[in-house]
Amino acid sequence: MNRLRFIFMLLLSAELKQVYGVWPMPQHISHFTERYVLHPHQFSYKYSSDSAARHGCSVLDAAFKRYFRIIFPDIEGGTGFRKTWSEAKPFTVSVSVRTVGCDEYPNQDSDESYNLSVSAGEAMLRAESVWGALRGLESFSQLVYEEDYNSYYVNKTDIVDFPRFPFRGLLLDTSRHYLPVHVILKTLDAMAYNKFNVFHWHIVDDPSFPYQSQLYPDLSNKGAFHPVTHIYTPSDVRKVISHARFRGIRVVPEFDSPGHTQSWGKGQPDLLTPCYKRTGPSGTFGPINPSLSSSYQFMGNLLKEVSSVFPDTFVHLGGDEVDFACWKSNPNVQAFMAKMGFGHDYNKLESFYMESIMNISAAFNKTAIVWQDVFDFSKQSRAQYVVEVWKRGCYLCKMHQVAKAGLKIILAAPFYLDLPGPTHNWARYYTVCPLSFKGTEQQKKLVIGGEVCMWGEYVDAANLSPRLWPRASAAAERLWSDEEQTSSVEKAFPRLQDFRCKMIRRGVQAEPLFIGHCKHEYISL
Amino acid sequence: MNRLRFIFMLLLSAELKQVYGVWPMPQHISHFTERYVLHPHQFSYKYSSDSAARHGCSVLDAAFKRYFRIIFPDIEGGTGFRKTWSEAKPFTVSVSVRTVGCDEYPNQDSDESYNLSVSAGEAMLRAESVWGALRGLESFSQLVYEEDYNSYYVNKTDIVDFPRFPFRGLLLDTSRHYLPVHVILKTLDAMAYNKFNVFHWHIVDDPSFPYQSQLYPDLSNKGAFHPVTHIYTPSDVRKVISHARFRGIRVVPEFDSPGHTQSWGKGQPDLLTPCYKRTGPSGTFGPINPSLSSSYQFMGNLLKEVSSVFPDTFVHLGGDEVDFACWKSNPNVQAFMAKMGFGHDYNKLESFYMESIMNISAAFNKTAIVWQDVFDFSKQSRAQYVVEVWKRGCYLCKMHQVAKAGLKIILAAPFYLDLPGPTHNWARYYTVCPLSFKGTEQQKKLVIGGEVCMWGEYVDAANLSPRLWPRASAAAERLWSDEEQTSSVEKAFPRLQDFRCKMIRRGVQAEPLFIGHCKHEYISL
Repeated sequence: MNRLRFIFMLLLSAELKQVYGVWPMPQHISHFTERYVLHPHQFSYKYSSDSAARHGCSVLDAAFKRYFRIIFPDIEGGTGFRKTWSEAKPFTVSVSVRTVGCDEYPNQDSDESYNLSVSAGEAMLRAESVWGALRGLESFSQLVYEEDYNSYYVNKTDIVDFPRFPFRGLLLDTSRHYLPVHVILKTLDAMAYNKFNVFHWHIVDDPSFPYQSQLYPDLSNKGAFHPVTHIYTPSDVRKVISHARFRGIRVVPEFDSPGHTQSWGKGQPDLLTPCYKRTGPSGTFGPINPSLSSSYQFMGNLLKEVSSVFPDTFVHLGGDEVDFACWKSNPNVQAFMAKMGFGHDYNKLESFYMESIMNISAAFNKTAIVWQDVFDFSKQSRAQYVVEVWKRGCYLCKMHQVAKAGLKIILAAPFYLDLPGPTHNWARYYTVCPLSFKGTEQQKKLVIGGEVCMWGEYVDAANLSPRLWPRASAAAERLWSDEEQTSSVEKAFPRLQDFRCKMIRRGVQAEPLFIGHCKHEYISL
Repeated sequence: MNRLRFIFMLLLSAELKQVYGVWPMPQHISHFTERYVLHPHQFSYKYSSDSAARHGCSVLDAAFKRYFRIIFPDIEGGTGFRKTWSEAKPFTVSVSVRTVGCDEYPNQDSDESYNLSVSAGEAMLRAESVWGALRGLESFSQLVYEEDYNSYYVNKTDIVDFPRFPFRGLLLDTSRHYLPVHVILKTLDAMAYNKFNVFHWHIVDDPSFPYQSQLYPDLSNKGAFHPVTHIYTPSDVRKVISHARFRGIRVVPEFDSPGHTQSWGKGQPDLLTPCYKRTGPSGTFGPINPSLSSSYQFMGNLLKEVSSVFPDTFVHLGGDEVDFACWKSNPNVQAFMAKMGFGHDYNKLESFYMESIMNISAAFNKTAIVWQDVFDFSKQSRAQYVVEVWKRGCYLCKMHQVAKAGLKIILAAPFYLDLPGPTHNWARYYTVCPLSFKGTEQQKKLVIGGEVCMWGEYVDAANLSPRLWPRASAAAERLWSDEEQTSSVEKAFPRLQDFRCKMIRRGVQAEPLFIGHCKHEYISL
């Protein structure tokens, strides 16, 4: 009760004085009290004369349009601007990008740094790449605030900013529940507000196979919840990838195998391992059958299609939670084990399978991400892949192990958002220290980032957003910002409260942190 | 994992065969395989010739219109009905109500029973009152199902139905967060689908006072989060009451005192008790000051207004969680205690205050509901009031105590929904047995019902619906249906899954129970 009251007070104070600022916290930011009126009819974006990117730059032209609407949400109302008319002077956001690349896709090496300097009449935004410019435009939009009705202001501000980690991911699971495309697009919008830059699309799994393959249409015809209404057509996928690109977000697809493939078996005969009961097949099926060359041919063809459909250089190959029971029961698999000299060590069989498909994806110039199980099964492997650490317990110990093996790491374990806790559990995600394992600087450099995971057992279009936001925002700051400057939950609370209201104002259905209100409460758009 | 798999299988089986039926489960229902095509152009509602209610009956005329849209959600689409045109024959829902009362408000004694018989070309709905007819219309709408695109069917069915408890409430807290009026109206819609019949409006509390009083406008001017955008005007309140009436839902307002009144103090000087530190006032305030006659005059005037604004015969007077520390510190209160001969027993002071305002509300012909604390403080009181049991621990023991004292009971303790648990916690609400305390039949008759409580610390417009539904639906069936017929969680699961999809189809943002899909996924309307 006292604790509640304490937070309540904290909250009130936060409401009294306007909370300025940007979420996630920039690396360096200086605020000044001097402020400038912004008027929609006197506000513009332009490319500065020294910018390599110019009008016609797809990504930035679209961003200018998008952020204008975000900064002036009531512009469509048309009226109500008189009040500020008199005070208003022209204000221009000038963008200067050093290297072009407006039509490319963001990648692991994209430079997202930017400098922003807001002064009288102008905001100067400088970035190495268009992706950095996008981050700067987002920060600028968060600096603008509304006072009374339709009076917009921005304070004199200087920002020097860059991400702590290059990989800041968000996983959506579209197999346990189907997520309509517009829900994925809205999530990408919110990701951009939070400076997430990777959409990890866990697109298929046991319950359903919504990905419509050109090569193997039966996978979704027979494996989706519904072959027409609950699938992602090639054009749906293109729409998602394009929407993401315009926001500087990569799309990394996951085709998890050999386990988690029950839905695959419906449309692809002989792919899964028939489980045996005593002498005969039981009628149930296990993981993909690693003893048949046809399995590798299928995976080769599928991964070839996937590699061409998804432009990102990363692909997630899963490899988690493989149940050996069915393999063990199957005489053909047993025979294959003997032939390969694996004895009774099914870890070797799992490794053999994973190495094979990782080699396939390598042949398509893709870097494979796999769940930590794959590392656990084949520590001595020489293959180069990225390990996603997801298991509870001492994930820091696991990170250290993986780092010692010289493999790159993505941390997901402490960022599982799908199981609801009391809402203020945002602090649980905020207080994660991804680099606190004992290891050399060199080893810590192998941690390329982290990822929030929203598994689908209890989440679909009806509750995705409030379950995601603002809890994922806590992780977003952890992955973007300097840990020292953002170590206090108490200091973060009013800032996150404020950012949550900003998201609400933008139509993101983010749930409240605690007692209080937003100037504009949520209205479903 | 096995458990998950088990539920998963259960779910699949549920999806294979269409789940017919009604939630909450009617007292008696017989299904037949014979089915009839329904065509929107051949479908109508009418009053049967022997009905006391006729055209012009506000409640039912509106319900006919409403349920037509619910049964044929795509009617606006216009097209797509050709397919069934040929098979379609006229179908009429004939409603017969024995006693008129179309313009009254539902109350504690309203008869909600109905009989529904669906046969070729006609559904005969008989009810004692329009409120029972509304319940029957809801049940009929749930019997209709869509096959393929825009083909609607209903099976031959006979239903005899009535509620287990007359009081089936849902509490919303509009003080810890403000809920826009349209959010309250949408919640009332969903309540009607679930056959809830009481909206317990916890309208004010410590954090804010959004109720706009005609007599004391400063209460919301100074006590609301915002004096214009975050208040309920008299016309807002009328809108809520009218929307509820049209759905057979009572609106019981709660003005919780003497505690939980911090926001009241902002607009009403001298109402709250000044807390003392050593010799002087500390500047903080406690509960309403029970030692001043002005406090009782204020409460009398406020309750008089409230009694005329809210037509229901019940009013909730709160009385929970009163902190005595501040009273104890205040010399005037101490003097009052001495004068009244209460010694140092502050329970007596609390009782004195509550009895006084209960007498006031009685003078306005209102039945008072109070939280169990009031009963605990004054067991020997002879006042007649309804006790709402809300505290954890052995709530059944408490019910037995209250019943022995001959007071009516509303059970809330096991129905708190505001703290999120894993979604499938619906079973926790479903498996409550409200009458399982040791007591005579006579004593058990004193349990007039139960209530789900959605407190507002972590809930506002952004996440109210998915947090409420379908978990509240589990409680709805417990309060309406026969406990023996609805004791199995396994049997309830596919039915609730099906009902949840029905709510989704009606635009209620109900969260999923587990892996699976709805034919029509949620789209924000």
